[in-house]
Amino acid sequence: MALIVQKYGGTSVGDLDRIANVARKVAATKDKGNDVVVVVSAMSGETDRLLGLAKKISPLPNEREVDVLISTGEQVTIALLAITLESMGYKARSYCGWQIPLVTDAAYGSARVTDIKKEALLKDLQAGHIIVVAGFQGVDDAGNVTTLGRGGSDTSAVAVAAALNADLCEIFTDVDGVYTTDPNITAKARKIPKIAYEEMLEMASLGAKVLYIRAVEFAMRYKVPVVVRSSFTDNEGTLVTEENSDMEKESVRSVTCNTKEAKITISGVEDKPGIASTIFSLLADSNVVVDMIIQNSSEAGKTDISFTLPEADLKKGLEICQRLKQDLHAEEISGSSDIAKVSIIGLGMRSHSGVAAKMFTALAKEGINIEMISTSEIKISCVISQKYAELAVRTLHDVFELDKASA
Amino acid sequence: MALIVQKYGGTSVGDLDRIANVARKVAATKDKGNDVVVVVSAMSGETDRLLGLAKKISPLPNEREVDVLISTGEQVTIALLAITLESMGYKARSYCGWQIPLVTDAAYGSARVTDIKKEALLKDLQAGHIIVVAGFQGVDDAGNVTTLGRGGSDTSAVAVAAALNADLCEIFTDVDGVYTTDPNITAKARKIPKIAYEEMLEMASLGAKVLYIRAVEFAMRYKVPVVVRSSFTDNEGTLVTEENSDMEKESVRSVTCNTKEAKITISGVEDKPGIASTIFSLLADSNVVVDMIIQNSSEAGKTDISFTLPEADLKKGLEICQRLKQDLHAEEISGSSDIAKVSIIGLGMRSHSGVAAKMFTALAKEGINIEMISTSEIKISCVISQKYAELAVRTLHDVFELDKASA
Repeated sequence: MALIVQKYGGTSVGDLDRIANVARKVAATKDKGNDVVVVVSAMSGETDRLLGLAKKISPLPNEREVDVLISTGEQVTIALLAITLESMGYKARSYCGWQIPLVTDAAYGSARVTDIKKEALLKDLQAGHIIVVAGFQGVDDAGNVTTLGRGGSDTSAVAVAAALNADLCEIFTDVDGVYTTDPNITAKARKIPKIAYEEMLEMASLGAKVLYIRAVEFAMRYKVPVVVRSSFTDNEGTLVTEENSDMEKESVRSVTCNTKEAKITISGVEDKPGIASTIFSLLADSNVVVDMIIQNSSEAGKTDISFTLPEADLKKGLEICQRLKQDLHAEEISGSSDIAKVSIIGLGMRSHSGVAAKMFTALAKEGINIEMISTSEIKISCVISQKYAELAVRTLHDVFELDKASA
Repeated sequence: MALIVQKYGGTSVGDLDRIANVARKVAATKDKGNDVVVVVSAMSGETDRLLGLAKKISPLPNEREVDVLISTGEQVTIALLAITLESMGYKARSYCGWQIPLVTDAAYGSARVTDIKKEALLKDLQAGHIIVVAGFQGVDDAGNVTTLGRGGSDTSAVAVAAALNADLCEIFTDVDGVYTTDPNITAKARKIPKIAYEEMLEMASLGAKVLYIRAVEFAMRYKVPVVVRSSFTDNEGTLVTEENSDMEKESVRSVTCNTKEAKITISGVEDKPGIASTIFSLLADSNVVVDMIIQNSSEAGKTDISFTLPEADLKKGLEICQRLKQDLHAEEISGSSDIAKVSIIGLGMRSHSGVAAKMFTALAKEGINIEMISTSEIKISCVISQKYAELAVRTLHDVFELDKASA
C-alpha cells in the first residue's frame, strides 16, 4: 500500500465522459489498496473563457480579481470529479487551495508555494477518502486567492506529494512520456524510461512543455519521484527521479529545439565597463527576460553584444536598444526572429569529454552555421538559422544515437 | 454619509453589460459619500447549468460537492464586478463567503447563517474600498463550503447589513417593489411604500416571491431597514421596516394567492388521541411539509382530517396515507391539487374587528365556497377551488380597498 498523487490536466477532464474516465483510473488505483490524492486542472478551455470575460471588461483587469475569477475553473472540476467518485460508491472529498490550505506568496497570477498544511488531508486519507485537490490555486497569508501561473497544476501536484511524503506523483497528460526529442521532428524519437531531475529541469527551461520548471524544481528539492504518462493509454511513462546507477549511461539524454526566441545584436559599442549593465538593467526594468548573452571584444576598443529574448518581446527590445544607441555610441542595432535554439542535454556530459566538439562538428558537416553558443554543466545550446532547426535536431539525435536504448 | 448594502440578483448581473450597469449604480452610491457593500448572485442561468452537470452524473449528487460546485457561480460574478469597478477607477475588493467569513451550520444546500465576522470588511471599508460579496454562500465551522438555498443572496445581503449595522439594505430585483397583490391578477394592484417586517414575513410564507422568508426573518430580528426596488429603473421601491405610526393605517395590507398546494382528506377516522400524531409524524419523516391542518369531530366517534401540502408532494402524501388507512380504520382517502390558498395580511387586523367576517362575506357573495380556514394574528387564509383564485383575489382587493392609499 502506497500513497499516490495523480494529476490530470484540462484535456483529461474536458467533459463529463472524460471526468468519468479519470474517476475510473483513480478508483482502480484506490482498489489496489493505495491512498490516493488527485489534483485536477480546469476543464479545457474554461480558464481561457474566464480570462476572455475579464479582458472584455479591461485590457489590464485587476490581478487579485482575475485570480478569484479563474480559480473557479478548478473548483468546478474538483466538485464534478468528487460527485462522480461518490456516485461510484467511493468516499471522496474535494479541496480548494484555501481549504488545504496551500499557502503561497501574494504574487497574483504566478504565486509561489510557500507552505502546505497536511493535517486535514492526512485525516481524510486515514478515514478512507479519495482526496480531490484543485490544482493551480492557493491562498496567501492574508487569505487572498492566488494562482500559480503556467503549469500550476503540475506544481500543485508535486508540492502536495512532497508535503504528504507521497510514494509517487503521477502526471497524466496528453503525451505518454518524455521523449529524446520532439516526435513531430523525427520519428526516431524514443520515450525515455528514466530521467534525472537536473536533466528534466534543463529540458523544461529549454522549452519542452511536458513538465513545467517549477514543478520539476519542487520535485528535485523534495526528491518526489514523478511519472509522466498518458491519461488515454495504459502505457508506462517516464520516471523523473534522482540520478542513479540504474539510469542509462548516455552522455546526451535529449535534444530540444526552441524557435520562439529572437536575437538582437548591438554592433560597434565602446568596450568599457558598465555598458552591459546599462543595456540589461533597462531591459529587465521593462520585464524583457533575456536568455543568452554573448559579447565579443574586437579591435580598436569596440565590441559587439548579442542576446536572445522571447520572440514576442523583440519589438520592445529593439525600441529600448534604439533609445540607448546614442549613449552607447553604437554603430548598428539589428534584430531577427529567424533563429532557433537547439540544445543537447545530459548528465553524462559531466564525465564525457568531447561532447561539445561532436555537436559542433555534426552541425558544421550539414553546413549549419552556429551564431551563438551557451553551455552549462549538463547542456549545450546553439543558436542557428531557423530554417535549419529540424535538420539540426535530426542530425544531433542521430549523432548521439538517441534512438538506441543503452544496455 | 451612510453604510449601504446593495444586493443584485442573477438577472441584474446576467451579462457583462448588465454587470457594467450594476457597477454604475454602485459607483453612484459611493460617489454620494456612502460606504458600499454589494452582494451579488450568480449570472442568471449559471446555477442551473452547474446543477445540470451534477445531475447528469448522478440523480442524487453528493450534497457537499454540489455546494462546492454551485458556489463558483457567485464567485465568478464578484470577480467580474470588482474588475469592472476597478477599471472605472474605484477601489474594489471581492469576498467569497469563506473569506469574510460568513459562517453557517453544515446543512448543505440550505445552510443557516450563524455568524458573520465583520473585521475584514470594516477594515476595507475604512480604506475606501467598495466591497463585493458573493451571495448565497458561506462556510461551516469545519471549513466546508455551504450554500443558503433559495433566495440565499437576499439572506446574505440582510445578514451582512445586520453584522455591519448598515443604515440600509437595498434589494435590487426585477420588480420595482412589494405590491398589494400580484399585478398580473389585477391592474388595480398598488405598490406599497412601507410595510412592516411581520407583514412581509407572512407574505413571504404565503408565496410572495419578492423577498425570501429567511431574509425577512433576519431583517426583523436585527431591525435592518430593507428596500426592495428595481435594478432597471430609478423608481422608489418598498421599505420593509419596523411597524411605526408613519405607516398607512390599513386593516389589510395585501392579498396573496398560492396555487401550488394540494389537499388531502382522510375521512371517517376513529376519533381518539394519537391519530394526528401518527399521520403527521410519518409525513414529516418523509420530508413532506404540511401547511394547514383541519380536524372536524363528527358524530359517532369518527372524525375527518384535512391538510394541505406542496402540490409536488401530493403523490407521496397519498401513498403514505394509503399505507396508514388500515391502521387508522379510515373510511376514505382523497386528494386534490385543484385548490388555491387565498390570504389577506395586515398588522391592522390586530385592532380591527370584523375583518374575517368581511372576507368570508365577500367570497360568499361571489359564490366561492371556503374549504378550509386558517388564521394568525395578522393574516387569514382560505382554501378555495382553484378556478376561483383570480376572482377571489380581485374581490378581496376591492373589498378592502387596497387600490387606495390611505392618508
